[in-house]
Amino acid sequence: MGCYIEPRFFLAIVFSVFWRCVIDVDGFRFEVIATDAGTHARAGVLHTPHGIVETPVFMPVGTLGTVKTLSQQELRDLDARIILGNTYHLYLRPGMDLMAEAGGLHEFMNWDRAILTDSGGFQVHSLADLNKITEEGVVFQSHIDGSTHLFTPEKVIEIEHVLGADIAMMFDECTPYPSSRDYAQVAGERTVRWAKQCLDAYDGYGRKSLAGHAQALFGIVQGSTYRDLRERFTEETVALNFPGYAIGGTCVGEPKEDTWEAISTVVSILPADRPHYMMGSGTPEDLIQGVMRGIDMFDCVMPTRNARNGMVFTQRGKLSIRAARHAREFEPLDSECACYTCRNYTRAYIRHLHHTREILGLRLSTIHNVHFYLNLMRQMRQAIIEGEFAQWQRTFLNFYKGNEDGEIQE
Amino acid sequence: MGCYIEPRFFLAIVFSVFWRCVIDVDGFRFEVIATDAGTHARAGVLHTPHGIVETPVFMPVGTLGTVKTLSQQELRDLDARIILGNTYHLYLRPGMDLMAEAGGLHEFMNWDRAILTDSGGFQVHSLADLNKITEEGVVFQSHIDGSTHLFTPEKVIEIEHVLGADIAMMFDECTPYPSSRDYAQVAGERTVRWAKQCLDAYDGYGRKSLAGHAQALFGIVQGSTYRDLRERFTEETVALNFPGYAIGGTCVGEPKEDTWEAISTVVSILPADRPHYMMGSGTPEDLIQGVMRGIDMFDCVMPTRNARNGMVFTQRGKLSIRAARHAREFEPLDSECACYTCRNYTRAYIRHLHHTREILGLRLSTIHNVHFYLNLMRQMRQAIIEGEFAQWQRTFLNFYKGNEDGEIQE
Repeated sequence: MGCYIEPRFFLAIVFSVFWRCVIDVDGFRFEVIATDAGTHARAGVLHTPHGIVETPVFMPVGTLGTVKTLSQQELRDLDARIILGNTYHLYLRPGMDLMAEAGGLHEFMNWDRAILTDSGGFQVHSLADLNKITEEGVVFQSHIDGSTHLFTPEKVIEIEHVLGADIAMMFDECTPYPSSRDYAQVAGERTVRWAKQCLDAYDGYGRKSLAGHAQALFGIVQGSTYRDLRERFTEETVALNFPGYAIGGTCVGEPKEDTWEAISTVVSILPADRPHYMMGSGTPEDLIQGVMRGIDMFDCVMPTRNARNGMVFTQRGKLSIRAARHAREFEPLDSECACYTCRNYTRAYIRHLHHTREILGLRLSTIHNVHFYLNLMRQMRQAIIEGEFAQWQRTFLNFYKGNEDGEIQE
Repeated sequence: MGCYIEPRFFLAIVFSVFWRCVIDVDGFRFEVIATDAGTHARAGVLHTPHGIVETPVFMPVGTLGTVKTLSQQELRDLDARIILGNTYHLYLRPGMDLMAEAGGLHEFMNWDRAILTDSGGFQVHSLADLNKITEEGVVFQSHIDGSTHLFTPEKVIEIEHVLGADIAMMFDECTPYPSSRDYAQVAGERTVRWAKQCLDAYDGYGRKSLAGHAQALFGIVQGSTYRDLRERFTEETVALNFPGYAIGGTCVGEPKEDTWEAISTVVSILPADRPHYMMGSGTPEDLIQGVMRGIDMFDCVMPTRNARNGMVFTQRGKLSIRAARHAREFEPLDSECACYTCRNYTRAYIRHLHHTREILGLRLSTIHNVHFYLNLMRQMRQAIIEGEFAQWQRTFLNFYKGNEDGEIQE
């Protein structure tokens, strides 16, 4: 006796299987164009419906539809190719009705380059006032007004479908540090189950945003600091065949050696032809360490948040522009920097702006720091392509950590 | 018996007399190029060592060496030709030693267009914690740290010599509203005496900044709301032959009819070939009223401060962008505006930025409001030149006050 399947269901299954076997769908494609001989570092190109992103790449964080203090024109001038938006924050403000009406986040904020949205998995744990995790999802209270909300895998994919980022992250259960092995296993298993639900919901939208752009859904691997769990969850997530993969649950306070062991473990199993994204990292040294281990994508609030606190990055290490010693320095933040800030303003002026709490001080420091981070990635990419990554790295760190001016250490 | 005068003193006297009879000195020159038939409105060109300023002009206020939220590049993009710096504020922070070392305010803030510095006369009364006026000057306590300072006419001119603005204002005693006739007379007489002292100090510096640029010192006329006092002090100040004149002690809370009577009284006596500056004004309607009465220069914190509070100016009146009614408006702040903000962002987005306290919201509103003010002045200038000022004014006010959207009234 045969098994009757309705033609439309049959077609949907065939289509879905086919779809999951390629990542070169509708404007999203990743290619590795060079690999480093001595490390796992690689240079690539990520094709998105909103332009090309050269990897390794740092994605400035634009939590609420704005990279804090910067205009979209400044982001273009800095040649940011992709920025990050936060699902949790945008869901609460301005909310999804407005976002749908606006035509998605690109239209809302007038940014025609690529966007990645996180899934809120991190924020519902770190920001929301209360949260309760069940198999269904996470119930949490808004940090704005205390209202109660439920994020399920399907709900998050729906939100990201409306936001319409080029890359949407799956909803995961981000394990804090430290986590017991039992909890890490429970959370990691749940994350794999949610991964399937997210993929199904994503397929349900035809892998497209509400506005009609193709979207790439990335899987997230948890497993805390347990090597075998990391291996197992990586294999199970990779089996689902996502267009890209992120390593979650690092940069949550664990020792650096645990971070890098987790990263190396996961990346060694991830398919080489998919982008590898290390979430929430980090310092310039972290970016170098991550690239060495085969990471292609990074995001972190460090360059922007530190800038607003007067902490700026230079080729010779960090400095605190508020310090009295900079009051009479009529030179740029970094004499080797080509950013708008360094081409036009002195440390003395920027320090004065910080001291008097003028917004231009926050802006100029942010422009500089974002330029520093993006430029660091461009330098690494160039070095990988030219086969000089090891040498570049030594030279950079020699200056950066050599710290010749006796500036603040990491 | 003859009176022997040393040749160098004789030459100094001749030189000084000659100097005071011309205003076309070393890079500072004012010319009226068109006058309106029906009003006292006029269009002019102010030549300064840092470029040409077309009048009537609005000067954005850059209190601490920055027009709040804007970069110097944005000010250039807005085609601001002259901005204002505050002597009182800059004297306290970053202080004069640093300013001298920087080479003056232009160098310090990297602004190569014109600057006007006020004298601190207004701030020592309105901001300083305590102040005591004597014939010598004003003793006041810093609003920052309570430290005690003395501003004399000579001290203020010394500070402005270091700041190096293209136009420096004399130190005056700004009368509040209301002021008794006796006090207005005492303050006005003292202001005239201080005017002479300021001019002498200014001559002592060769009418140049510390950095070597020519500076134009403007006289200020006080007299509160008393017509005969205004007339008398105008005549006495004009007799000192300043390169330009300001009307002080208006826009301090008096009824509008008193403002305009004082302005008309003073301007009717001021020489037509010198620029006329109305300090601290005002609303768009005030600028039009001032121009009608022969004012060439204005400054006010209104466009910048209101922007930061979410109040924006449009051709159809003011609106509060924070209001709920703008949440779903996917149109520019002002559909007839060509500023960066209106070319790129919607009301819905700007409202979201204000709601979430994002700095970009303050920036975009400020860009728009400063553009609105500068553009208003350019429109008036063009109308005066084309002989259509009366008609322009009717059309503008019809739209602006017609207030078709039911927005906030002035």
